[in-house]
Amino acid sequence: MDYSTNDSKSTSKKKVVAVVGGGLVGNLNACYFAKRGFQVEVFESREDIRQAKIVKGRSINLVLSHRGRQALKHVGMEDTIISKGIPMHSRMIHALNGTQSPIPYGKKGQYILSIDRANLNKELLSAAETTETGAMTFVRAEGAKEEIQADLIVGCDGAFSAIRKQFLRQSRFNYSQTYIPHGYLEFTIPPINGEFAMKPNNLHIWPRNTFMMIALPNLDKTFTCTLFMPFEEFEKVTTGDKVIEFFQKYFPDAIPLIGAEALKRDFFRLPAQAMVSVKCSPYHFGDKCVLMGDAAHAMVPFYGQGMNAGFEDCLVFNEIMDQLNEDFSAVLPEYTRVRVPDDQAIADLAMYNYVEMREHVNSKWFLFRKNVDNFLHIIMPRTIIPLYTMVTFTRTRYHKVVKHWHWQDKVINQGLLFCAAVSVAGGSYLLVRYLPSMPNIPIEQLWSRLCTLCWGQ
Amino acid sequence: MDYSTNDSKSTSKKKVVAVVGGGLVGNLNACYFAKRGFQVEVFESREDIRQAKIVKGRSINLVLSHRGRQALKHVGMEDTIISKGIPMHSRMIHALNGTQSPIPYGKKGQYILSIDRANLNKELLSAAETTETGAMTFVRAEGAKEEIQADLIVGCDGAFSAIRKQFLRQSRFNYSQTYIPHGYLEFTIPPINGEFAMKPNNLHIWPRNTFMMIALPNLDKTFTCTLFMPFEEFEKVTTGDKVIEFFQKYFPDAIPLIGAEALKRDFFRLPAQAMVSVKCSPYHFGDKCVLMGDAAHAMVPFYGQGMNAGFEDCLVFNEIMDQLNEDFSAVLPEYTRVRVPDDQAIADLAMYNYVEMREHVNSKWFLFRKNVDNFLHIIMPRTIIPLYTMVTFTRTRYHKVVKHWHWQDKVINQGLLFCAAVSVAGGSYLLVRYLPSMPNIPIEQLWSRLCTLCWGQ
Repeated sequence: MDYSTNDSKSTSKKKVVAVVGGGLVGNLNACYFAKRGFQVEVFESREDIRQAKIVKGRSINLVLSHRGRQALKHVGMEDTIISKGIPMHSRMIHALNGTQSPIPYGKKGQYILSIDRANLNKELLSAAETTETGAMTFVRAEGAKEEIQADLIVGCDGAFSAIRKQFLRQSRFNYSQTYIPHGYLEFTIPPINGEFAMKPNNLHIWPRNTFMMIALPNLDKTFTCTLFMPFEEFEKVTTGDKVIEFFQKYFPDAIPLIGAEALKRDFFRLPAQAMVSVKCSPYHFGDKCVLMGDAAHAMVPFYGQGMNAGFEDCLVFNEIMDQLNEDFSAVLPEYTRVRVPDDQAIADLAMYNYVEMREHVNSKWFLFRKNVDNFLHIIMPRTIIPLYTMVTFTRTRYHKVVKHWHWQDKVINQGLLFCAAVSVAGGSYLLVRYLPSMPNIPIEQLWSRLCTLCWGQ
Repeated sequence: MDYSTNDSKSTSKKKVVAVVGGGLVGNLNACYFAKRGFQVEVFESREDIRQAKIVKGRSINLVLSHRGRQALKHVGMEDTIISKGIPMHSRMIHALNGTQSPIPYGKKGQYILSIDRANLNKELLSAAETTETGAMTFVRAEGAKEEIQADLIVGCDGAFSAIRKQFLRQSRFNYSQTYIPHGYLEFTIPPINGEFAMKPNNLHIWPRNTFMMIALPNLDKTFTCTLFMPFEEFEKVTTGDKVIEFFQKYFPDAIPLIGAEALKRDFFRLPAQAMVSVKCSPYHFGDKCVLMGDAAHAMVPFYGQGMNAGFEDCLVFNEIMDQLNEDFSAVLPEYTRVRVPDDQAIADLAMYNYVEMREHVNSKWFLFRKNVDNFLHIIMPRTIIPLYTMVTFTRTRYHKVVKHWHWQDKVINQGLLFCAAVSVAGGSYLLVRYLPSMPNIPIEQLWSRLCTLCWGQ
């Protein structure tokens, strides 16, 4: 079979692509393949999300940033989606005493967007169905054992992918699934007098070392709060009173915002949800089947890159389709070769941020280094780029992001060490030179002040 | 249900244990459970190994060492098995020019054993069937869909365990399977005039950096050779002539031993076999099911610990059964808690040895450090214990072995650094003191000699 573009455009029989999974990545893929003129069939076992109520246990809102936007842009959907998103310019850190301090995500004007999952999915689904060049059928296959007849099967069926399970049968398929010890629960902060109860253009974070809470704004002026905590800690909170006690101890400012009664109720509405990190390789099977999105690389949600990486999968696949003239026997191995190291890098970064978000943001050293990085970025914008910026506001390949990060981290730390050495040397000189004329400050006190400054707490 | 020993001994109805998998670990487990008075049923889909020909694609011989021996001893089988093993006191390193140099495995009198897999399995199976206290049935269940009715299911069904596949369905089950880029092929070195063609009491190694060959002695005076090489290298060797060319380049001394015709034939008899490292956690499901051996932790074969770790699983489970009075609801979680970190440690060590065996043994620094370690072990036998010794000749828990190894590695390297510094300081002093009277040797020449001495090649 010849898959070159010319042939495909000239033959009357369209190639058939079966997209398994009608979630975000599945529907975006449908748009991409339809745009190429393929006949696309989307298989989804759940009911049509446009008619469905909120899907149980899935997060309500998501973070959209540069990579996801670029992927949407290519199918002409960026503006529609952005218009229904809420820009977030900073993390807003809530200290235990209730004070809030912002840490910007990037330079002025750079922001990430809080997006409603259900609405995004609806928009994508409708766009896929109405793409003119491709005939779309939407098949609901609830448990039905259907034979899929297609030139290509695209597995976009999420972290618990049934398509990926078939891959496990082949020899030399590398696979790992790792559950973290934390689970999550969601709460809602309703509007106050029709307005947002907190500053809306921020991602609010309550970092508490072993656990944390975050809140993202919604279009209806509510916030969705997510509490991340080890399962064993969840198990200790067994009654409504204990919920309040727990929040009074760690998130006192959130109680009036969520409401004590709502807290007591929602804490027990669902069990805490598990989070899994999935890696596998290869992403393809022969020239017949390929995995994208969470099916290929489910990650923990702490970098806000799950959807963005999944969307970028579609974009990268599309780029390779162009390069290799839609020849699946070449495109699929190339997609694996190019994309596996990038997806594994972002999955690892998400796991790293799992610690950073709840611990490091509490440390003065972390904040100091962030300021140093931002300063150096301003004076050397191409050489020093903060990690978060590379991940969130560029399309630099994820694995190159990690490489560059390690390199510049080493360089900056050595530079700081050098500055410190020079300061100490200079200080010593001045001390020896002018000591007799200085007031008498105990050296321990100086040292302890210095330590507090550098390492915090 | 009460599983306490007293109850179990006093009731007339025996508890039923279903052991899935009639390989080495399955049959040893059958012995252990039968010895406790359980009714044991072993399920095995392949035909009875006692009647079967050599199993395709499984290695022919295995390494038995202290942990495996202790596990056999507990069911009274150590002596029988050892009598049919061949002691190997050293690695015998074959250089490219054919010279052979031994590296002992431990102190004088310490050795590992080359054991025939088929015979070991026969002996274990027969022992399990004839254990007096337990009624044994051996069920052959080839593809039959049988309902297993048992108080406990023990999954010993190997690296591709069907039981473990069921575990994948539960939430929060951590799992990884990693294939290495190397495959393996086996050859035979026949006896010469009825005698071993090489020194029999060694494990022969031809380390060639990216690939290697090893040979283990058999009771019939043959050696089984195993060639480990990246799959892509195997694919380059496409004809009999290329096989000979390849061996002439890398293993010239092995050609007359294996025989050119046999080499050409056996190289293409089977495709190169893949090797997988499997980790998972937990090992148990409720109080009903538990994984042991390769089903729980398949590892690459480069530490000779696969079988030993699997046998030690049985021994550890047995120890916990004693401690917790055969109460499965307590024994199973405790087995997971105790055994997972140990099995993961030895799987990692096996992966580490995958590099050490084919690369490091070629380095003079490695041999120097080995001698230092051995020397320190002699003068401080409780403080400094070579890694290989802890793994192979003790029952120190694997994860503690790794901890101790890292600790002593740091200490020894710091010690060597200190000695080097003292030598340099002393040398400098002498140089300055006596330089005028020394003959004129260029410093570059001294330096290059030193480098050759330390890093080899």
